[in-house]
Amino acid sequence: MKNPAVITLLTDFGTQDTYVGAMKGVILGINPSANIVDLAHDLPKHDILAASFALESAYHFFPAGTIHVAVVDPGVGSKRRALAAQLNNHLFVAPDNGILTPILEKRKPKEQVISLENRSFFLPRISGTFHGRDIFAPVAAHLSIGVKLNAFGPVVTDPVLLPWPKTKQAANSISGEVIHVDRFGNLVTNITRNCLVAIGVNPTGDDKAMTQIGRSRLREIVGSYSQKRRGQLLAIIGSVDRLEIAVREGSAASIHRTWRRGTKVTVSKTNNA
Amino acid sequence: MKNPAVITLLTDFGTQDTYVGAMKGVILGINPSANIVDLAHDLPKHDILAASFALESAYHFFPAGTIHVAVVDPGVGSKRRALAAQLNNHLFVAPDNGILTPILEKRKPKEQVISLENRSFFLPRISGTFHGRDIFAPVAAHLSIGVKLNAFGPVVTDPVLLPWPKTKQAANSISGEVIHVDRFGNLVTNITRNCLVAIGVNPTGDDKAMTQIGRSRLREIVGSYSQKRRGQLLAIIGSVDRLEIAVREGSAASIHRTWRRGTKVTVSKTNNA
Amino acid sequence: MKNPAVITLLTDFGTQDTYVGAMKGVILGINPSANIVDLAHDLPKHDILAASFALESAYHFFPAGTIHVAVVDPGVGSKRRALAAQLNNHLFVAPDNGILTPILEKRKPKEQVISLENRSFFLPRISGTFHGRDIFAPVAAHLSIGVKLNAFGPVVTDPVLLPWPKTKQAANSISGEVIHVDRFGNLVTNITRNCLVAIGVNPTGDDKAMTQIGRSRLREIVGSYSQKRRGQLLAIIGSVDRLEIAVREGSAASIHRTWRRGTKVTVSKTNNA
Repeated sequence: MKNPAVITLLTDFGTQDTYVGAMKGVILGINPSANIVDLAHDLPKHDILAASFALESAYHFFPAGTIHVAVVDPGVGSKRRALAAQLNNHLFVAPDNGILTPILEKRKPKEQVISLENRSFFLPRISGTFHGRDIFAPVAAHLSIGVKLNAFGPVVTDPVLLPWPKTKQAANSISGEVIHVDRFGNLVTNITRNCLVAIGVNPTGDDKAMTQIGRSRLREIVGSYSQKRRGQLLAIIGSVDRLEIAVREGSAASIHRTWRRGTKVTVSKTNNA
Repeated sequence: MKNPAVITLLTDFGTQDTYVGAMKGVILGINPSANIVDLAHDLPKHDILAASFALESAYHFFPAGTIHVAVVDPGVGSKRRALAAQLNNHLFVAPDNGILTPILEKRKPKEQVISLENRSFFLPRISGTFHGRDIFAPVAAHLSIGVKLNAFGPVVTDPVLLPWPKTKQAANSISGEVIHVDRFGNLVTNITRNCLVAIGVNPTGDDKAMTQIGRSRLREIVGSYSQKRRGQLLAIIGSVDRLEIAVREGSAASIHRTWRRGTKVTVSKTNNA
Repeated sequence: MKNPAVITLLTDFGTQDTYVGAMKGVILGINPSANIVDLAHDLPKHDILAASFALESAYHFFPAGTIHVAVVDPGVGSKRRALAAQLNNHLFVAPDNGILTPILEKRKPKEQVISLENRSFFLPRISGTFHGRDIFAPVAAHLSIGVKLNAFGPVVTDPVLLPWPKTKQAANSISGEVIHVDRFGNLVTNITRNCLVAIGVNPTGDDKAMTQIGRSRLREIVGSYSQKRRGQLLAIIGSVDRLEIAVREGSAASIHRTWRRGTKVTVSKTNNA
């Protein structure tokens, strides 16, 4: 038996309304054997960058062939395009508002981006406010039953790309910023494992790497929370391969309330040996 | 292969406890291939009208044959009956407290309502506080494996119907009220698309339709959020085919804190052409 | 056709991040037909006892053969072991931090506890902060495709057991404490149905049983909320077979803010007939 197609849903629709439920109903009406998985729905409202980061963090843990629907869509009902895209045998369906930036930036030339224009794959009536249900869900469902990407519309060569916050590398240091605060109050930065390696820092633990955030200086990169005591601030490469500022069994974001998305973080290679 | 039966769950049980999980365990014990879909669980506690609105908004996006379990049940353990009902090839399982009002009001004479009384389809022991798990989940599971409606108990002819707030139509205007505030702070009213058509207003956009809510007057019905600037108040037919008062990329409910469920809304056809 | 394996997930990861989604992706990559069910994810952060209670309350409603993954893991990345265990044909995968206490205490001698050490069943790279995704999810997936328990590592004879709060029984009374506050503000205690039976109290309703909590005295155990008026405080055996202090259609925890986990509760058999 063929494995059921996996469709993930990532939205800012929350769980107090039936918006996500309605999307699932639409999908199951087209592909009753689709395996629908919630990626996250309590994303900050209208926050395309947050959704973009969430998608990039999680999609690659799914099996090849998975279809990812990402809908944070403040421009719903406007002339903004609707897209489907490919990356490493994953498929993505989303508004053309930059939410797919980290996907689109990595795609190879042969991996196409399509403008969703063939209305035969949409719901018969399209609301002005909920394309997640009326366009993105039915398109994902049709992809999951084998409709080919180019059946949905013409190729797009100029999808919207958001200015993803960049890091700045110097000889012995790398500067970046907080890009996400998670449920635990961990501050996730755009400084990746590879950024640290590039300045000679060992990402699995280095006591000659100083991290500066606000007025705080953390004198090492640790390999696990357990290297610090409960309540202590620490810097660690977290589960999405990015530097995180955390408090062991506590919330860095609650303790340091001025630290948030956009707060600058610098890691320097020290030579205090 | 036959498609797996779809069972949706709509409750006020939230996601911090294992109440919803236990319902799913019970269902899978009876029908291991059931496809269980969360409709919403963070509904306001004990709020039958809110659940009723949520169910009506979403059920019809699911394929025919879907079984919908709706449990907001302040009267659990009392003598209130437990019901199963039919509408347009959908099945519904819920307490007899009015939660099914919009379903029951639309049903055709041949679509039966049954009082769930056959204990062989319940869990062996029924708690006094959680019929969602002990009665409604196992009944839904048995429906999903083909047990016929009339096996569950006798026909009910007098199910509880809630007084759903009605609109009032005049020659050139329609009056209604806010019936739901969603996660985005959009104020959803009981004024439907058809209500607007009835007074000569074009629901997809009409600059000769004035909406009054509180002391605010909105001078047109727009077709999409993008017709207004960020932060502007607007009136629009939303995704559930009802007039909504919204703020583009903002929250109408947060800005206008006195507007809530029950707040009056009137749309008038104007002739200022 | 064989029924799909059921894997439940219980975590403190919340629903605003993609942590739970990533675990599901990992599972589906190993067993595409796994039926993954959320038990709860909005548990209090780092609260092992709460997770332990949640697991015990819900697991047994699932069919035999279900695999339960429970990850509240403040010691992630430390030397704490990772476990798989058996009870009544259910399988459990969790950190060795006491979260499995109520499971392990009930197991029979032949039901083994295994230390997860065979890295061929983990993700290729193990992060220092997210063993839910890197160890527990892939182990559960491998269990679900039939890998035997003893393939994962050696037997453990000294798993961590938490001091679960005990009740204290006297001739005509039983003393215990609040162990959980649910979404509705119901205060769930460690006084079970059987505890009441042991002191001669009828758990389905007894007007000669006095419950004391704080300065309040409740003069009967009721059989359903409906025996009290809206807003009244009551004592009842709730859905997890434990004594609960509740307010009908209200929240006991909101009204009595000093009552929380750890608050003492005593039930006495009275003879005021």
